[in-house]
Order: sequence, then structure tokens, then C-alpha cells
Amino acid sequence: MRSWVESANDPQGDFPLANLPYGVFSREADEPRCGAAIGDMIVDLAVLEGVGLLAAGAGAPVFASGRLNPFMARGPAVWNSVRGRLTELLAEGGDRAVRDNRDLRARALSPMTACRMHLPFEVSGFTDFYSSRHHAFNVGSMFRGPENALPPNWLSIPIAYNGRASTVVVSGTGIHRPLGQMKPHGSDEPVFGPSRRLDFELELGAVVGVPNRMGQPVTVAEADSMIFGYVLLNDWSARDIQAWEYQPLGPFQAKAFATSIGPWVVTKAALEPFRVPTPPRERPLLPYLREPGPMLYDIRLEVLLQPAGAPAATTISRTNYREMYFSAAQQLCHHAVGGCLMRTGDLLGSGTISGPTRDSRGSLLELSWGGREPLRLDTGETRSFLEDGDTVTLVGRAQADGCRIGFGECTGTILPAVVEPDW
Amino acid sequence: MRSWVESANDPQGDFPLANLPYGVFSREADEPRCGAAIGDMIVDLAVLEGVGLLAAGAGAPVFASGRLNPFMARGPAVWNSVRGRLTELLAEGGDRAVRDNRDLRARALSPMTACRMHLPFEVSGFTDFYSSRHHAFNVGSMFRGPENALPPNWLSIPIAYNGRASTVVVSGTGIHRPLGQMKPHGSDEPVFGPSRRLDFELELGAVVGVPNRMGQPVTVAEADSMIFGYVLLNDWSARDIQAWEYQPLGPFQAKAFATSIGPWVVTKAALEPFRVPTPPRERPLLPYLREPGPMLYDIRLEVLLQPAGAPAATTISRTNYREMYFSAAQQLCHHAVGGCLMRTGDLLGSGTISGPTRDSRGSLLELSWGGREPLRLDTGETRSFLEDGDTVTLVGRAQADGCRIGFGECTGTILPAVVEPDW
Repeated sequence: MRSWVESANDPQGDFPLANLPYGVFSREADEPRCGAAIGDMIVDLAVLEGVGLLAAGAGAPVFASGRLNPFMARGPAVWNSVRGRLTELLAEGGDRAVRDNRDLRARALSPMTACRMHLPFEVSGFTDFYSSRHHAFNVGSMFRGPENALPPNWLSIPIAYNGRASTVVVSGTGIHRPLGQMKPHGSDEPVFGPSRRLDFELELGAVVGVPNRMGQPVTVAEADSMIFGYVLLNDWSARDIQAWEYQPLGPFQAKAFATSIGPWVVTKAALEPFRVPTPPRERPLLPYLREPGPMLYDIRLEVLLQPAGAPAATTISRTNYREMYFSAAQQLCHHAVGGCLMRTGDLLGSGTISGPTRDSRGSLLELSWGGREPLRLDTGETRSFLEDGDTVTLVGRAQADGCRIGFGECTGTILPAVVEPDW
Repeated sequence: MRSWVESANDPQGDFPLANLPYGVFSREADEPRCGAAIGDMIVDLAVLEGVGLLAAGAGAPVFASGRLNPFMARGPAVWNSVRGRLTELLAEGGDRAVRDNRDLRARALSPMTACRMHLPFEVSGFTDFYSSRHHAFNVGSMFRGPENALPPNWLSIPIAYNGRASTVVVSGTGIHRPLGQMKPHGSDEPVFGPSRRLDFELELGAVVGVPNRMGQPVTVAEADSMIFGYVLLNDWSARDIQAWEYQPLGPFQAKAFATSIGPWVVTKAALEPFRVPTPPRERPLLPYLREPGPMLYDIRLEVLLQPAGAPAATTISRTNYREMYFSAAQQLCHHAVGGCLMRTGDLLGSGTISGPTRDSRGSLLELSWGGREPLRLDTGETRSFLEDGDTVTLVGRAQADGCRIGFGECTGTILPAVVEPDW
């Protein structure tokens, strides 16, 4: 279906009419408000809501707030009606209320280049999973050898840890190299200082729209219906801090300094044509984790790395979300199964998404095999881990029959460590 | 100093004028508002603020909101002025504005027995530490033997994991036995069902009042000044779920179903006379973790267990917060050292507080030594882990020279597991 917003009809563009991802933006001195991407423009949903052309159900207005949470909390029927109405307003041959009103059109549509993107939703909780078979195998092989690579529970549980919600930031935010405690190889004593093994992790985040009730488990099908959409996610990781701290209670400061997410939440509705089943089970799942249908998505993902001053970025990884062993619906079901309350705005990281080949690994730890096989960039430089000034960009798209559902990009540049306080 | 609220002068009471802990309460159909405990009464801070007798600095009113966060965010100068003013209004021989106004007195003071307590603050993040030397040694001994009990990093890092903020509940909330995945001893396959090894953990929680800036580490002294106060905390734990899930990324569903906290946040000001140094270091700390002065507190803690229908509770553990190896200020400093943003309402669990003797252990796992040495209750019954209907109550108090600074109690009763959905 074509849009009268011409740039939305570009087959190489991320944001056709079939996508309509949601985000939070501001233009000049305006307060942040909710928007949807269409071509190279952003539709101001608060403006459309304000003039009565768009309603998120029967309650109070939701789009003028600087976060998607109130809209997400309204649930699937409202998500569908808003998507339907937006499509109508933006389609060629649809409702001409915006198209034919020059003043309204100017207020309701802003060029992306004139807008600043904000964190799209308030992150209530951030949970990071570990559900890529190839990633778990690669990391396990490095630390325990290929025979013991997968922990005994791995094929039965979508393994996860609670991450830090307060430091989830939107794409474009600079990332200071973290300070922390490490124990250098061969040293008897820990040292303190800037991480020397700073890494990215290519992930997709599932965003919870509808809460459950505390104490009430949900099925995989119910979990799927609670998910509002998906975002690109970079789980920045300090491998040297992680190695020293993570036994026995898991990663903590190695991951706490920052997690970047893309500005656009791509809805489940837009991804619907790209549903695929999870890979064959290597061990039968307990009944509560079995999927009633395909709940993973065919989403191509890439990582680009650009050193400071380099003329262009090098694509250092190409993989696909369909490589995951567990879907987000399975992850969310497991998360709630003990009675844990899941809330609007909870963010579930997929875990690093690695494919079976060397160039489809989703972290530098794997790409450089623990630093032993540095990666060569197009500039001729090599990388084992990230240097100050490096920019890491994640991109993603689902694509078929000339239609692309894109995620935009999730980017971040490494800044030097801050000056230490006078301890 | 005596109060004209007579019950506050009882030397066996938790809430003398020198304490004045903060909480959130409601009376009959009223909305929850902030209060302070005095004797067996609660002072309604919203009422005092409303009539102009109490001000939390120069900004908008803070006490009518159903959470302490706005007040906590105001910082130490406001905390001190509010405490000073409340003391003046409640002291014998102080300001008689409340005491001598019968109508105001009736509105501003409610008997605790007529009030319902709520979660005292919105929990922004919940982090659970592992900083009791004896607890870490006991647990490590059970799993790895006494020679390898402490992990290599333990004496250098206040080890912690991120917990689940959404399921922190106030004392008195019933706790459903969680469902989850476990691998029974001797079985090759995991099973799913209600936890059979349900436990409590006796902890103290530090409550962050003042945020840092993201990316900016803080010193131990600064961390101490960011802390608003302390609450009793019970980190309910499903040991069988934990044993099967926790490698390699730490506890997750074993702890996600519920964490109980006491209704009263005891301020740092009230605890000031009870400051004590941390125990001698067994290995020198890196400079950033060194304390400029005593930052632990002498707080006696007890655990009581009462089976359903039993005439009275059995005291099953007596220990002291001064047993901790790391203070909350050290924990908070470590938490922020990599640049992690700490926010108003962040809750830092101390970790299970165990003393050196058998009867000072802070969990059933330790008290029954993994279930091998069941505990005998006063009723003649035994317990390895918690049964449905058991009520666990934590109490705490700092005490010297006839003055007691009490925490009230943190209690919870185990409810049967919920009926499973039709998977």
C-alpha cells in the first residue's frame, strides 16, 4: 500500500506505510511527544489526537506525554485501532483530512532531520536473556571448552539476569568507558581503572505493553499478546570487569553503565508477516514453555563499526533474529511463571544474537575470539575490543517481496573514561 | 527527650521521639499519605504540611503523595529541617501548635491500629548484595566445601546482583509459593511445579534518597550522604529453583516472585549514635572502597517463625547488622563506580545477615544446613524450609542507654501456590 508521503514509498527505506513504528521526538523547543515514522518524516500523534483525528481508545489523551507507556498500557485492541486509523490517514487514497489541510499537515509532519529522538518509553525493568544458541556456545567454548560449552540448564530455561533499567539510553547517547575493578591475567591482586575490554552486544529488545497480575503466571500465547513491539538493543559490556565480578551472582557493574536502544519501537503488527518458528528443540521443553505457533521473526541484523575520523563504517557482523533458541514470548512466559509482576515498559533483551558463522557473531568477544584473533576493519586498523572514539551502529530490517520493515539504527560512540574522584 | 505523645516514652517501644521513621499509611477511605511513627501513633505529615506547620524546603508540597520519593529527593538539608521541626512539634515542652489544638491533634495523629501501611516508597531499582562474611562462608561451604567457601573476588568486591523491583511489597502482604523449574536430586530431567525449598533471607535495605549523575562515580562518603535511611528486608528465595537456574548468570526466578520490606524507613539521623566500623579487613581494599569513618550500624535483628495455628512464634535467629563485611555506603559507591545512575527510591539489600554462631544465621538454608539438620520450633514441629501457612517476621532495633530505635516488623505469610494455567 502506497502513502501520499512520497518518501515512504522508497523500497530501500526503513519506514513504509506497512511499518509505522512508534517513538518519542521533539522539534526545536517543543516538549517531547509521541510520533510514528513514515518515510523520512515523523507524524506527530499528539497533534492528530489534539484535533480529534486519532484516539487511543476512550480514555484520556496519551500521545502528548513524553513516553509511550500510557499508549502501550491500553492494550492490543487500542494498538490495532490506532494503527488502522494512522494507515487510513497516511495511505494514498485514504482519509484526506491531513493530506488536504496544509496547516495541519505542516504541524503534524516533521522531517526526521529536524527532530531529536528521546528514549521511547520509560523502562520499568530491564531483563537481559542469553537465548542465542551460537552465542552461548561460543562464550562457553572460550571459557570452558566446546565439550562443556552449554550449561546443563541452557536447553531447558531461557536463562536471564536482571539488568539495570536506570541506564537504558536512546541511540545517539555517548557512552563513557566505565571504571571498575578487574583482575589482570597473571596478577594476584585486582586493580581499578578504565575497562580495557569494552564490547558491544547485538540484541533485539521486546517491549512489554500489557502487565500481568503479580502472582499470576501467563502462558506463552498470553505472553506474546502482552508484547507491544521490538527495538534494537546494544548491551554494552566491559569484559574485564565481568570476568572478575560475575561469579557467583552474575554480571553487575560490567553491564550497569549503559544499554542503548533504538528510537523506534517496531510493532508486532508490522512484523506479523515475518513470523518464523524457533529452531528444532535439542531437548524437549517442559509444557509451559511450548509455543502454540511461530513466535520468532525473520529480522536481518547488522553491526557497523567506525573508528573516530574514519571515512566510513565497516560492517563487522551480519546475522538474523531467527537464530534465537527461545522467542521473546517464551522468555516473558518464563519471567512471569513464578509470579513475577511484569509491567508496562519492561524491556527484555534477547541476549546477544550470534549466527553459526564467524561473520555472524554478535559481539567483539566472539568476533575476535576473546581478543586472540583481532578483527580487520576496512580502514586497515584492527580491533579486539572498542577504542575511544569508535562508533557502533546496529541496524535491522525484515524484508520480503519489496517491502522492508526497518528498525532505523541504534548507535553510540565510546567516550573516554571520566576523571576519577579523589578517593 | 520526652514526647507529649505518652506512648513514645515507653523504653520498650520501637518509636520514641528520637526515632521518627517515615512511612506511608491510610486511614479508612483516605488516600495514602506520608507519616511518621511516634509511640503507638502515626503523625500525618500531609496534614501538618497542609496547615503550614511543616515544610519540606521551599518547593511544592511532598507529603500528600502516596510515596516518600518526592521528600527523599529533596536531600539531606531538608531531611534535617523536617526532622528538627517534627521533633519540636512532638517534644514535651516544645512547640504546642499541635498539642494544644484538639481538632488538629485529632486530624494529625492516628492510632497505628486504625491505619493500613503501604509500600513506603516507589522502588526505582532493587539491588541485592551478598556482603555478610558468615553467610557467604556458610553457603559456600555447603556447595564447595569450607576451603573454597569464599569466591576469589569476595573480599575485594561488594558482590551483588540486580533484583526485581516490581515485586517489592510491604510487610503483611501474603506470599504465594512460587512455581518454577527445578531439577530434583538424582533426576536427569528438570520438572515444573511449586518450590519445595522455600526460604526467607534476613536483610536490611538501604534506601537511596539523592541520585548521582549518570556516568559520574561517587566516593564512599558521598554515597553515605545519598542514603536516606534503612528498612527491614526479607528476600524470599526458592532454593530449588535457584540451584537449577543460577549458573551462569545468577539468581533470577528464585528471587523474582516477592521481596518484603518493613513499612518504616528509619533515618540515618536516628541511627547516628549507633554507627560502628566494619570488621577488620582480611585483604586490603582498593582505595575507592575505603571508608572515611564508621558506616555500619549496631542493629540487633531477629527472625520469628510461626506455623499456621501455632499459639506463638519461635525466635529462630538473633544476629546484628554490624556483622556485615561491607557497609551500604561501600555497596552504593561500588554500584555507581562504573557510571551507573542511582535514583531516588533505589533499594540496596545488604545480603543475608548471618552471625558467627549457629543461632545467628539469617536463612533457613543455613539454619537447617541445606535441610540436613531440621530446626526444632517451640511447638515441637521441625522446619527445613517454609510450609504453607508459616509466618516469618523480622524485627530490628538499635538500643543503648534506655533508648531504642526500632524498625517495627517485616512480616509475611506463605500462601499455597496458585493454580497453574492450562499450558
